Amino acid sequence: MTLKTSQQYINDIRKMKIDLYMFGEKVENYVDHPMVRPSVNAMAMTYKMAMEAEYEDIMIATSNLTGQKVNRFTHLHQSTEDLVKKVKMQRLLGQKTGCCFQRCVGMDAFNAVFNTTFEIDVKHGTHYHQRFIEFMKYVQDNDLAVDGCMTDSRGDRSKRPKEQTDPDAYVHIVDRSEAGIVVRGCKMHQTGMLNSHEILVMPNNSLKEDEKEWAVSFAVALETPGIIFVYGRQSCDTRKMESGSIDVGNQYFGGQEIMTIFNDVFVPWERVFMDGETDFTTMLVERFASYHRQSYGGCKVGVGDALIGATQAMAEYNGISRASHVKDKIVEMCHLNETLYSCGIACSAEGYKTAAGNYLVDILLANICKQNVTRFPYEIARLAQDVAGGAFVTMPSEKDFVHADVGPIIRKYFVGKSDIPVENRQRMLRLIENLTMGTAAVGYLTESMHGAGSPQAQRIMISRLINLEHRKNLAEKLSGVKENKDLDWQ
Amino acid sequence: MTLKTSQQYINDIRKMKIDLYMFGEKVENYVDHPMVRPSVNAMAMTYKMAMEAEYEDIMIATSNLTGQKVNRFTHLHQSTEDLVKKVKMQRLLGQKTGCCFQRCVGMDAFNAVFNTTFEIDVKHGTHYHQRFIEFMKYVQDNDLAVDGCMTDSRGDRSKRPKEQTDPDAYVHIVDRSEAGIVVRGCKMHQTGMLNSHEILVMPNNSLKEDEKEWAVSFAVALETPGIIFVYGRQSCDTRKMESGSIDVGNQYFGGQEIMTIFNDVFVPWERVFMDGETDFTTMLVERFASYHRQSYGGCKVGVGDALIGATQAMAEYNGISRASHVKDKIVEMCHLNETLYSCGIACSAEGYKTAAGNYLVDILLANICKQNVTRFPYEIARLAQDVAGGAFVTMPSEKDFVHADVGPIIRKYFVGKSDIPVENRQRMLRLIENLTMGTAAVGYLTESMHGAGSPQAQRIMISRLINLEHRKNLAEKLSGVKENKDLDWQ
Amino acid sequence: MTLKTSQQYINDIRKMKIDLYMFGEKVENYVDHPMVRPSVNAMAMTYKMAMEAEYEDIMIATSNLTGQKVNRFTHLHQSTEDLVKKVKMQRLLGQKTGCCFQRCVGMDAFNAVFNTTFEIDVKHGTHYHQRFIEFMKYVQDNDLAVDGCMTDSRGDRSKRPKEQTDPDAYVHIVDRSEAGIVVRGCKMHQTGMLNSHEILVMPNNSLKEDEKEWAVSFAVALETPGIIFVYGRQSCDTRKMESGSIDVGNQYFGGQEIMTIFNDVFVPWERVFMDGETDFTTMLVERFASYHRQSYGGCKVGVGDALIGATQAMAEYNGISRASHVKDKIVEMCHLNETLYSCGIACSAEGYKTAAGNYLVDILLANICKQNVTRFPYEIARLAQDVAGGAFVTMPSEKDFVHADVGPIIRKYFVGKSDIPVENRQRMLRLIENLTMGTAAVGYLTESMHGAGSPQAQRIMISRLINLEHRKNLAEKLSGVKENKDLDWQ
Amino acid sequence: MTLKTSQQYINDIRKMKIDLYMFGEKVENYVDHPMVRPSVNAMAMTYKMAMEAEYEDIMIATSNLTGQKVNRFTHLHQSTEDLVKKVKMQRLLGQKTGCCFQRCVGMDAFNAVFNTTFEIDVKHGTHYHQRFIEFMKYVQDNDLAVDGCMTDSRGDRSKRPKEQTDPDAYVHIVDRSEAGIVVRGCKMHQTGMLNSHEILVMPNNSLKEDEKEWAVSFAVALETPGIIFVYGRQSCDTRKMESGSIDVGNQYFGGQEIMTIFNDVFVPWERVFMDGETDFTTMLVERFASYHRQSYGGCKVGVGDALIGATQAMAEYNGISRASHVKDKIVEMCHLNETLYSCGIACSAEGYKTAAGNYLVDILLANICKQNVTRFPYEIARLAQDVAGGAFVTMPSEKDFVHADVGPIIRKYFVGKSDIPVENRQRMLRLIENLTMGTAAVGYLTESMHGAGSPQAQRIMISRLINLEHRKNLAEKLSGVKENKDLDWQ
Repeated sequence: MTLKTSQQYINDIRKMKIDLYMFGEKVENYVDHPMVRPSVNAMAMTYKMAMEAEYEDIMIATSNLTGQKVNRFTHLHQSTEDLVKKVKMQRLLGQKTGCCFQRCVGMDAFNAVFNTTFEIDVKHGTHYHQRFIEFMKYVQDNDLAVDGCMTDSRGDRSKRPKEQTDPDAYVHIVDRSEAGIVVRGCKMHQTGMLNSHEILVMPNNSLKEDEKEWAVSFAVALETPGIIFVYGRQSCDTRKMESGSIDVGNQYFGGQEIMTIFNDVFVPWERVFMDGETDFTTMLVERFASYHRQSYGGCKVGVGDALIGATQAMAEYNGISRASHVKDKIVEMCHLNETLYSCGIACSAEGYKTAAGNYLVDILLANICKQNVTRFPYEIARLAQDVAGGAFVTMPSEKDFVHADVGPIIRKYFVGKSDIPVENRQRMLRLIENLTMGTAAVGYLTESMHGAGSPQAQRIMISRLINLEHRKNLAEKLSGVKENKDLDWQ
Repeated sequence: MTLKTSQQYINDIRKMKIDLYMFGEKVENYVDHPMVRPSVNAMAMTYKMAMEAEYEDIMIATSNLTGQKVNRFTHLHQSTEDLVKKVKMQRLLGQKTGCCFQRCVGMDAFNAVFNTTFEIDVKHGTHYHQRFIEFMKYVQDNDLAVDGCMTDSRGDRSKRPKEQTDPDAYVHIVDRSEAGIVVRGCKMHQTGMLNSHEILVMPNNSLKEDEKEWAVSFAVALETPGIIFVYGRQSCDTRKMESGSIDVGNQYFGGQEIMTIFNDVFVPWERVFMDGETDFTTMLVERFASYHRQSYGGCKVGVGDALIGATQAMAEYNGISRASHVKDKIVEMCHLNETLYSCGIACSAEGYKTAAGNYLVDILLANICKQNVTRFPYEIARLAQDVAGGAFVTMPSEKDFVHADVGPIIRKYFVGKSDIPVENRQRMLRLIENLTMGTAAVGYLTESMHGAGSPQAQRIMISRLINLEHRKNLAEKLSGVKENKDLDWQ
Repeated sequence: MTLKTSQQYINDIRKMKIDLYMFGEKVENYVDHPMVRPSVNAMAMTYKMAMEAEYEDIMIATSNLTGQKVNRFTHLHQSTEDLVKKVKMQRLLGQKTGCCFQRCVGMDAFNAVFNTTFEIDVKHGTHYHQRFIEFMKYVQDNDLAVDGCMTDSRGDRSKRPKEQTDPDAYVHIVDRSEAGIVVRGCKMHQTGMLNSHEILVMPNNSLKEDEKEWAVSFAVALETPGIIFVYGRQSCDTRKMESGSIDVGNQYFGGQEIMTIFNDVFVPWERVFMDGETDFTTMLVERFASYHRQSYGGCKVGVGDALIGATQAMAEYNGISRASHVKDKIVEMCHLNETLYSCGIACSAEGYKTAAGNYLVDILLANICKQNVTRFPYEIARLAQDVAGGAFVTMPSEKDFVHADVGPIIRKYFVGKSDIPVENRQRMLRLIENLTMGTAAVGYLTESMHGAGSPQAQRIMISRLINLEHRKNLAEKLSGVKENKDLDWQ
Repeated sequence: MTLKTSQQYINDIRKMKIDLYMFGEKVENYVDHPMVRPSVNAMAMTYKMAMEAEYEDIMIATSNLTGQKVNRFTHLHQSTEDLVKKVKMQRLLGQKTGCCFQRCVGMDAFNAVFNTTFEIDVKHGTHYHQRFIEFMKYVQDNDLAVDGCMTDSRGDRSKRPKEQTDPDAYVHIVDRSEAGIVVRGCKMHQTGMLNSHEILVMPNNSLKEDEKEWAVSFAVALETPGIIFVYGRQSCDTRKMESGSIDVGNQYFGGQEIMTIFNDVFVPWERVFMDGETDFTTMLVERFASYHRQSYGGCKVGVGDALIGATQAMAEYNGISRASHVKDKIVEMCHLNETLYSCGIACSAEGYKTAAGNYLVDILLANICKQNVTRFPYEIARLAQDVAGGAFVTMPSEKDFVHADVGPIIRKYFVGKSDIPVENRQRMLRLIENLTMGTAAVGYLTESMHGAGSPQAQRIMISRLINLEHRKNLAEKLSGVKENKDLDWQ
């Protein structure tokens, strides 16, 4: 058993010395910074849940590399059952944190790099796969959090990497030596970066043969010299720095978005997993994206569960939970949420074994899953705002509620159903604000839109994977345009 | 191997002597009647496909009762893999027939009656389950088509069976003897009835303790005295009786809806599977409905594939298949169709073993599946009409196209893309009419709405199965309304 | 007062001698043909309503040309109030007929040709406008029904008229003389053609300068030599030829789609309104299309009213009209229907005076109106099918209901709410079938999609008419990208 | 001419002495408080625009009371043209401010109280109407901003005012004297309260005869003793208190939500406009709500214009504005936005004269308008987030962009299309954040949901106003259930 406790994990992170900027200042002990801590907590929950007997079946797997029990977040999926359990684990964590808990992107990168390096080696006679296995053993043995990055920043979207004015617009190799490579570029927005031990980098799109220097995949520790981190802002982010525990919405958990700059970073060869194989960037990108599109069929569903619960609570606190239109809206929220879950389960159950031996999701269905994730959470959030009533955007600050003079009179008028404490209404309204407009909405809505690829990326994949010729052939046979030999009895 | 060929099946049906009315007349040889034959063909395809090596894995299963290879349509599901294969089988048949092929409702009834009778016997000490096993062996040994009926006709929907003016508004027992029971009532609309060897009847709703005579389940052969059949009309039905093969849209396959009247029908005890156990009607109805709601995540997807193919064909025939808005609409059609499929797969993959030993779908997810089926096929049909252009509702009859005088000039103006024969456009337009407004639309749209239960029935089930207390608890912990002990490290 | 009675109108049509084919045969007295008569009746209602005092304000206008009272369907709009009344007139007729009543397309063509010919003459010094005024006086004095045609047939949609393999793919001038022109080509699908006295032809798209022969507009009587008509099929069309009055759904009224071939038809100069002015085809097409897109905000709303009424009736007949989900679905149907109406009203109220003096709708809002019409009727129809229950696709033929033996037992089981005659349920179910899948669905759904231009045509117009630069400028000022001088007080 | 300049208006507000709490502290000079100032600016724009010649036709009207030119925001509508211009004025202000500009609610209250008091007086022989006219003259002569309040706070929503545990849960009269009345209660959330000179209070729901003390309408100045104000929080509100002008999104304008407590406030009789006439509370509420539901068809459309502009700008800045899917999404945003506008125009154009002489909107269509406003802005916002890319939720703070060390490297990687300054991208991304998640989203989304009544309130009104009997009758005639005498010619 190689599992870390949540406390051990937090201690690891606390020890890190990194180059981090926030609000125009350098930050030293970021773990205990109120802006950051909720996101550390969310990641810590992936360690905590793995310790609980109740969730063992979901959270723990047996490593195919070491035979040890490992946290599923570091696991290489060995069956469709593993893929299904991954989705269930993510739903569980989404429910428990009400936000993005940040550890899945590394898991998805592990699995994609694992099976892609195998296929690179078969074709090119390289040795990336064994290197990567060693890296994975290190990850599993130390129960590490690793962030997976598809690098950008992309510059002018109408141009390819090589055509950009600035070649650094996409991460690329700027130098190589016997010891390793030197990379430069940026990952524009990376969820959970500061809460990871290591970074696993992948290219972010298909490349042409003459774009070899951009075809690079590698892993480095966060503390590696030359990496600069800048903290991204979120809607309502500074509520975390206010005193009090109510207006923040979710005082415990939150997400984190980081701009990560690779400013001539050295990577030793044993951590380089792709170096110029442009013919495999598409495979790596598609597989990683597919695993990650599957993930959203779990984590966002879990957050959706929390939002549905908050909506139901507000309906009860306001005395309207038995109105037929309220009940119907909550059924609709659940229906949409479970449809997302169904898509997450389906692409998992229909997964298959790769040449490398781990399991890959059904790529078409994973894209279907994500495409729905770019739509339904917005509608669920809209319905939540409908049922909750408008007070979550007009309510005074928690300080006013406890002010000596005006507090009592505010509380008098904030009574809803008379047996519900006013503070409960305050807290639940703020949670709904948090999930539909605040920091958690960044994860629940905008990340649902763009994380794991924007909607059009899925449509392009769907377009490529549906066999229209086959379907046209079905229609031509049924219509009589083509001969239909099916009816042998006539 | 106990499989029948499609030809053997058709011969079985041809031999039947039943009491059938259509258009105000008695019909004798209905199998060869042009109104009926396409529906016989659709059912025959369930026999035909089982003979093809290519589809063996999907179409054939090994009976848990006899150890023989059986058509999956007569199988009791032994695993979640079986449940998944069922969905794939249905998609295949939907693709091949472009309509409702009618045999799944019996399969769904088999599985529900099998595991419910087991539980009745456990509680009440009855012997229905063994009787039903004998019946199933007979079905499997003879590769029978059996229709499963949840009886109505329902009368005034605001009243219970016992409250109706006419007690026959729901099928019930009117007499009993040592030999068996006598039943009276009606099944208002039953898909594929005439193409079945046997009928397996179930009650259609929850019953109160004083409604025992309506709590009845049994099987009878179609030829049983006292049963009267009346053929239901469909949009465009009489096109099947016109000469020609184009305007009918799909000359090969079609559905069939039958009003079935039980006019004091005798049923021997060995074919009675429920008799007064009102406490089990809910279970039987819910399980049957759930299996059948899963089915729609396969069959309607298959028909959707054919419609997508027809739409793509029309786009090509008209020279617009490369327009970006056309491609995008076809991606959307596929996206919606695969979402339905994902729901079908998910409720199967999440199935579980019943006390009786066969597998049941995840009931919540099966209801999610069906709820989507009440929506997406309508949108897919709308998009098909958008892309196809309007000629499918304005085109002259096929007789005009071949008229000596006017035919040539009609054909001259019906040229689209110049290398596509005019007849191909005619045929494809008529297939789209058939699928979106004609006989096949009855199955693809209206049956998607009401078959296996109307939308509100699913919403009631969803409402019952979602655990709002659990979700509320999640929200109360995250908001701080309730103590959150998850963060043991703080 | 120059108004014709409905009887006079029908007599006019009965006298016509035209070259018509249907089901492979020539048809002589088409007015009394059961396939045609319902469409004649629908058109006749435009005459009938104009005679009723109750509707005078809506149906009657005062001609700006003659000072006489005329049927509004022959009127040149003199104010935004006229435009609004047009929409109300169309809603009224839609309500009364439950189908397409066919006379608006001529009214829309009148108004577009009127103001476009004025502008052609101003630029080119031609005399089309005066000619057209003479034609309009003749129309008004004789209260004629005129069909407006944007000609096709279009051939390969990816090619321009001149590029087509067959130059006749678009109607064009093939000869000219001192007396007039000779035209050849086809109008693929024309609603209500046979019920008109005259045809007013317009080109159907923008043309290049070297496509002058396709830039032609003219009017001819239906009986003009060289015109060939072929009757188009509709879903369920032959129900009209069955005996009985129930299964047809709407025994009184229906639409009509006609393929109209101009086989070298001579047109005298006084009826030619455009001859080669390619620089004005876009204006003519856009204006006609905009008037017609406005129309749909009236007529389809009226049909929607009838469908909503049928749905409410079925809910009452089945005893479910007080269920909250039923009431909510009917509210939603009304909401969507009134949204369409709002769009019809808005583009009218925002209309403006043209150089010629008649009023034009707001073109952007007319396109918004039509774009919604391509969506909402489908959803209204889906909801109607939801509430109505499935019996409208499974019910036996009306002949079975009156069969001596089986009729009584069928009727017994078709009782819903016990005080509602079975025949009422039959009739209402068939009306819903008619409106959502049958002959009326051709008008209510598919024509809503493609009539007055397919959805993409509206999107192109919207794209052209929205001023994105203006909107971008707003955003750039608010964001501070551009200087914001609005705040002069700071 | 009685118009105030924006500067004069601000001076008025600056002079006010009121009892205001924010973040647990009393605030004195609130006008110059950075949290408040953007909302003052937005209101000031209603004065500024009225001074600009370009907008005179829209912004200025001639008072029916005084014959003077007045700001339309203080006007009693004298025609449907006035109603239409009101909608256009609101769209204009929405475009110019990108937020809620707060002055319409008073205008809507003026018009509703004006015509309702007239009808009260007719029935009850009271003299409210003349009093109200005097008040209106004072408002117009001094170009006042007046806030209209439908009071709550509502307590337990399942109980009526009289049934509440706390009778103050709805504003009511607690004392009366020769001089006037004393009122107690609260208005939970009131947009723009602090930026108004006066408050015009109305009851918020239908009342029973024994609830006379809640049937009260009156006007008071903000500075009236006994009124307590508490500032409501909004998503991202404290960004206004940060230094810098970028992260705030819209540095100029914003909304404002205020909890307003009437703590035994004295109102002289000349400012009391309803006192116990419970039979007129429904009329007053419905009329006010309808005017205000019309308003949303203007103001939210204007904000939508700004959001569409921001989206188009981001597409250009990122180099994707010519991608077909981007163009199509922007067309869709415009389509939805113009549909809302059409609804705003339609209910205005269909308005009618009241007994009092001013014009009222079409109530049904105003409710249709608002119902769409509860849906489409959410979809427009979703599409904006789709096109904009995800950087608006991950971008570092503006301080980091100008940090001496890290600033240059951040800016290097934030280059999109190379000729666009990085700061422009920053600003536009922050504006999109502001409009879809930040302070402006409070107005654009949540207020669209709940302002002027929550969605279910509109559905109840729609349900009451649609004549289902009439529609059922149409269907019964068309189906043959009832005799159809329309066809007199057959």
